Amino acid sequence: MSSFLLRTLPATTEEMLGVFDDASTLRHALAFEAALAQAQAAVQVIDAHSAQAIATVCGAFTTDILRFAESVALAGTLAIPLVRALRAQLTDTAAGALHRGATSQDLADTVLMLQIKEASALLGADHARIVTALTLSATRFAALPAVGRTLLQDARPIGFGLRIAQWTHGIREAARDFERTIAANANVQLGGAAGTRADLHGRGSAITADLAQRLQLNPSPPWHARRGGIAAIAASLAICIGALGKMARDVSLLAQNRLGEALEQQIEGRGGSSAMPHKRNPTGCQVALSAAARAPGLVASALTGLPCELERGLGGWQAEGPVLAELCLLAAGSARAMAAVAESLLVMDAVISRNLAESDLGDDIGESAQIVADLLDRPRGPN
Amino acid sequence: MSSFLLRTLPATTEEMLGVFDDASTLRHALAFEAALAQAQAAVQVIDAHSAQAIATVCGAFTTDILRFAESVALAGTLAIPLVRALRAQLTDTAAGALHRGATSQDLADTVLMLQIKEASALLGADHARIVTALTLSATRFAALPAVGRTLLQDARPIGFGLRIAQWTHGIREAARDFERTIAANANVQLGGAAGTRADLHGRGSAITADLAQRLQLNPSPPWHARRGGIAAIAASLAICIGALGKMARDVSLLAQNRLGEALEQQIEGRGGSSAMPHKRNPTGCQVALSAAARAPGLVASALTGLPCELERGLGGWQAEGPVLAELCLLAAGSARAMAAVAESLLVMDAVISRNLAESDLGDDIGESAQIVADLLDRPRGPN
Amino acid sequence: MSSFLLRTLPATTEEMLGVFDDASTLRHALAFEAALAQAQAAVQVIDAHSAQAIATVCGAFTTDILRFAESVALAGTLAIPLVRALRAQLTDTAAGALHRGATSQDLADTVLMLQIKEASALLGADHARIVTALTLSATRFAALPAVGRTLLQDARPIGFGLRIAQWTHGIREAARDFERTIAANANVQLGGAAGTRADLHGRGSAITADLAQRLQLNPSPPWHARRGGIAAIAASLAICIGALGKMARDVSLLAQNRLGEALEQQIEGRGGSSAMPHKRNPTGCQVALSAAARAPGLVASALTGLPCELERGLGGWQAEGPVLAELCLLAAGSARAMAAVAESLLVMDAVISRNLAESDLGDDIGESAQIVADLLDRPRGPN
Amino acid sequence: MSSFLLRTLPATTEEMLGVFDDASTLRHALAFEAALAQAQAAVQVIDAHSAQAIATVCGAFTTDILRFAESVALAGTLAIPLVRALRAQLTDTAAGALHRGATSQDLADTVLMLQIKEASALLGADHARIVTALTLSATRFAALPAVGRTLLQDARPIGFGLRIAQWTHGIREAARDFERTIAANANVQLGGAAGTRADLHGRGSAITADLAQRLQLNPSPPWHARRGGIAAIAASLAICIGALGKMARDVSLLAQNRLGEALEQQIEGRGGSSAMPHKRNPTGCQVALSAAARAPGLVASALTGLPCELERGLGGWQAEGPVLAELCLLAAGSARAMAAVAESLLVMDAVISRNLAESDLGDDIGESAQIVADLLDRPRGPN
Repeated sequence: MSSFLLRTLPATTEEMLGVFDDASTLRHALAFEAALAQAQAAVQVIDAHSAQAIATVCGAFTTDILRFAESVALAGTLAIPLVRALRAQLTDTAAGALHRGATSQDLADTVLMLQIKEASALLGADHARIVTALTLSATRFAALPAVGRTLLQDARPIGFGLRIAQWTHGIREAARDFERTIAANANVQLGGAAGTRADLHGRGSAITADLAQRLQLNPSPPWHARRGGIAAIAASLAICIGALGKMARDVSLLAQNRLGEALEQQIEGRGGSSAMPHKRNPTGCQVALSAAARAPGLVASALTGLPCELERGLGGWQAEGPVLAELCLLAAGSARAMAAVAESLLVMDAVISRNLAESDLGDDIGESAQIVADLLDRPRGPN
Repeated sequence: MSSFLLRTLPATTEEMLGVFDDASTLRHALAFEAALAQAQAAVQVIDAHSAQAIATVCGAFTTDILRFAESVALAGTLAIPLVRALRAQLTDTAAGALHRGATSQDLADTVLMLQIKEASALLGADHARIVTALTLSATRFAALPAVGRTLLQDARPIGFGLRIAQWTHGIREAARDFERTIAANANVQLGGAAGTRADLHGRGSAITADLAQRLQLNPSPPWHARRGGIAAIAASLAICIGALGKMARDVSLLAQNRLGEALEQQIEGRGGSSAMPHKRNPTGCQVALSAAARAPGLVASALTGLPCELERGLGGWQAEGPVLAELCLLAAGSARAMAAVAESLLVMDAVISRNLAESDLGDDIGESAQIVADLLDRPRGPN
Repeated sequence: MSSFLLRTLPATTEEMLGVFDDASTLRHALAFEAALAQAQAAVQVIDAHSAQAIATVCGAFTTDILRFAESVALAGTLAIPLVRALRAQLTDTAAGALHRGATSQDLADTVLMLQIKEASALLGADHARIVTALTLSATRFAALPAVGRTLLQDARPIGFGLRIAQWTHGIREAARDFERTIAANANVQLGGAAGTRADLHGRGSAITADLAQRLQLNPSPPWHARRGGIAAIAASLAICIGALGKMARDVSLLAQNRLGEALEQQIEGRGGSSAMPHKRNPTGCQVALSAAARAPGLVASALTGLPCELERGLGGWQAEGPVLAELCLLAAGSARAMAAVAESLLVMDAVISRNLAESDLGDDIGESAQIVADLLDRPRGPN
Repeated sequence: MSSFLLRTLPATTEEMLGVFDDASTLRHALAFEAALAQAQAAVQVIDAHSAQAIATVCGAFTTDILRFAESVALAGTLAIPLVRALRAQLTDTAAGALHRGATSQDLADTVLMLQIKEASALLGADHARIVTALTLSATRFAALPAVGRTLLQDARPIGFGLRIAQWTHGIREAARDFERTIAANANVQLGGAAGTRADLHGRGSAITADLAQRLQLNPSPPWHARRGGIAAIAASLAICIGALGKMARDVSLLAQNRLGEALEQQIEGRGGSSAMPHKRNPTGCQVALSAAARAPGLVASALTGLPCELERGLGGWQAEGPVLAELCLLAAGSARAMAAVAESLLVMDAVISRNLAESDLGDDIGESAQIVADLLDRPRGPN
């Protein structure tokens, strides 16, 4: 079976690959069908025995992924071959109760939201590591006079920690906005064939609420053709990636040989060159900057789907899943790489001081220390 | 002097052009310099007479725009020729007090935020018109059985108003997110040469707070090289444009001759064809869909600037102003066009009913009416 | 090991997955190292025995992909662990001769070009199928009067085949431009550590020419930091995807129930709905439109890498490989899907005639037949 | 009337603004109508007197641009108010002959192509200046040993001119591809209401050929809904902008204070800082890098329009004109700025030698001189 690890793993983490791989997609799809049945049984839309049988079959389902993926590709949707395969293992009654009132996109959207929530937990952990490590560095070097550089030219002195505090604030606020965006948009999707919740005996709202609770998503009116939440998640991921890219840009510029003011810690086996074994490449920064180069285009793709057609778009929404997955993979690779950089960043204070002394800029760092304190303590804006 | 109205006006409104034109840019730049001087005088960083003289000169400043723009282009920044021109009209003392502790980007970023706030007020008014008009239509037609269409194929019946309620919810939430994003990020910028607020006698925070109040922006630590707020504003504008594009997509599909279920009201002089005088083109939808085609790429451009270089980026941030202005212009054109469409939308109920009758889909619209109520009443998510 | 088939296969073909999967990447990397050694032996830069030994070891190399991919991710480049692993199987002399004068990017860029050439052969076959099938349909229906539609409104009659001939011309020219772009840019990369071909005893040009011939790529000066060729390939792929998307857009619009003028042939197991088993979804068009929604953003990502840093960029070029691979995967899925649609497209001539009759547009199709002939016969422009 | 020079002029040139401003748009539109009438008179589709009268009225037409732009915005197309205004000045016969068999998009597309051709001549001149100047520098410094830098780390020595030769080759090939793309796609558009050339008495091809000759565009079958040429032009412009951005990136990195290996020549009034009067900012590079930041997103927008609807898209194609104009404006600003940089680039050979001496990298520049010769002499690929 095809694997793509040589292309994907350098840009992401194994944990995040695990969130979006076939096993995870299938597991969440089965969880959706089981929870839907249970939620419907709770309000007597289907019978409890069927719900139990469905849950059992979903819990035990296995398949040959390649052959199954071919069916999915042929059908154009995961739900069709999955429902067919599950029904084959159920009695007629239970088979009829399975996927009741649901449609392919209900499953696809809900699975995507479950995966994005898992992704957000993984990202949150790495973001927190970065913020913690950078806060320490920013505080420690808040008042260390250093050359400030604008438009890539020496400008005026700054406290070296002010630069780090700016990274910290940018990453922390991007991470918070991402979490707020997830909290506001991690909605269950249940609309049925045309988004009316037909065939649910008028109990659609109740079923949706119960289903949402079982899956730990927000209850919501159907959003199958209203994709602003998806777009907002994509944008907030890209802003996280961009904030990490900002730190990576600066570290890689500071690590230039004639500057040498901050360096990635050397890790055995990392950052080498196949032609120059002793070279010290900013490999963590490379991962983050590569992610930052890809993210804007991915957001453009996600936004393209907004003006979708009537009750279910053709092409646009089908593009969103891969785009969101890719953004999560890149965000994970970037956050993991920059967490390592942040935790072991070598701030070369003697070099910083020497560079400043040679620059003739003096040592007036203005209110750097006060601004560092503001950046580290205050959330942004009035909210 | 060059004008570009034939290219710009069809996509926007004269009011929004007025927010970003040269006169407005200059007016806000002068307001920044005057308010900065007054804020500095308030804490005795400059003397009150100089502040008064600066305010007077700023209030009376005029220039030949073409020649001035050439100076701006040569200098690479608006601030340099503006400060030079103002200083020429001031005594030495006041000239020295002008622009004290500020740098070009302080002026550019603050002016941009002032313009975006004005833009947001204009957009808010048109968004409100749309939401009001659509809420009425959605309610009125909530239970009118109509053909629901998925993947551009007849699917199941829906309440016609459910479709409208989905547009309404999407536009309303996008508009709210945009306003929240503005409220959180409309920050004054004052950092000085390298973002340390040097040369302000340690009174930088106080001056910033006073300056912010005078300009009705948020006080903030400097954000000259931390561009997440700009990126978030760009994304939220594009999501507004996309939500309007969704409505436009649907109206234009419903207005196809063999469907004819909803039509833009004919306006004298609008929607004609130079080859077919009696054709009825969905011209309002065209404006909104054209904006929706351009917005994703503009957001990609805005996101590209995030990983900027050290204390002031080279190229990236300079790209943001035109991109944000363009997004505001497109959002305005789209909102104004769809406000007219929303307020005069012809819902052809007899045609809708006939189409449904001919479709053999029955008339079970499920819980359409309940979902309409949910969509119109409830904000999204837990926030 | 993680697999992603449920996300990738619906959008592409197994053959194209095979071009970019780990086995293929590794095979091409080994071919590069073997051919490089042989080219160097041919001009006595290394000895013939070493070259033979290297070719043998490369021919027999196997590895545990997951563990190997982890090494690649750690190192930040495929070449480092690969060269290390190969050297471990060689004598000291041969180990020293391996990868002589080459650097990681030489391998990465050359492998990418080899994969893109394979991709282009696959795409060419599907493009040819489409052009052949559409040419037949266009000719057959050239003079069948049909409703022409502009801005989604009935306009004037057209020959139905004129519409098909426009698709044909667009796809054919895009495919030709793509092939021209590949022919002009499928260049071998051999520059060494800093792009100077040091350590090759002044025989770099000769080695490059021989290496190019062995790998069937163009000889070329090093292009490690000159990425216009990559960008051009990305753009030309997106234009192919867009030309297919145009056909898909039209077919899906024509297939709307109240129009019914052209339909995708029903394929067993394809185009169903999990909620509406008898619905006939335009699933081939969906694949092509989804690809068309993703391609523009991917091109934006590829273009972002152009202004790369000095002798090897940091982040930008590393982003290109995944982006090019994704574009090839999407192009393949789209071309395969539309080949099936083209070959079995149901042109409903009776419906077309009835729709026209009901439209009151008359039946003057102007010079449709002549334009069809022009479109099918003539290449574009003066070239 | 609104002017936007403060936002646009810093990013472009007055000449290129003149290509796309209202006066130019109107002039080309009038030229289209006049030439169309003359081409139709030449084959007796209209009478010669009418053609003469139309040409006269077109030659003398003036209007109040703001009021006229408002009519254009209302109508949704330039052609409608223009044709109406012209007809008001013609006899009934001539009025009926005006715009015969043409539609709004025929005028819009043809005008756009005329403007792009003018733009290409302007760009060609600046590209040639750059290539000439860089060729001299590359040759002169071909063998000057310098630090080569990869991933922003010192790597191996290079001939300094090799870096310049790489810029040269990249810019030259991008410029050539752009010109080839223009030559292949600068097609006249004449299709009429639905693209069939109805109402032309079967003389559509002849009229198109004559019209093309009069306007110095290629004759072509109608391409109103086949937008690959537009997309290719957009992409090739962005690749030019990217190639210039590459040079700008490198110059700005080399100009960093602690490197100082190459500098933009100081120009009176350019590159200053409002806060640090003696700072030397890389202002030319800033213009080019800002253009390079905006171009990828603009290409994404242009590609979005490819899957347009049936015989005339709704929204997508209307977005292309502003996007193409913006790309031309940015390309002009970038080329003009980098022409100045190229012609006066200060290559600091003593600093270069000192930096290399301090780097411990030795002075083996490999085959730099040979590669320089190859890059400067050879066109790319087999074409």
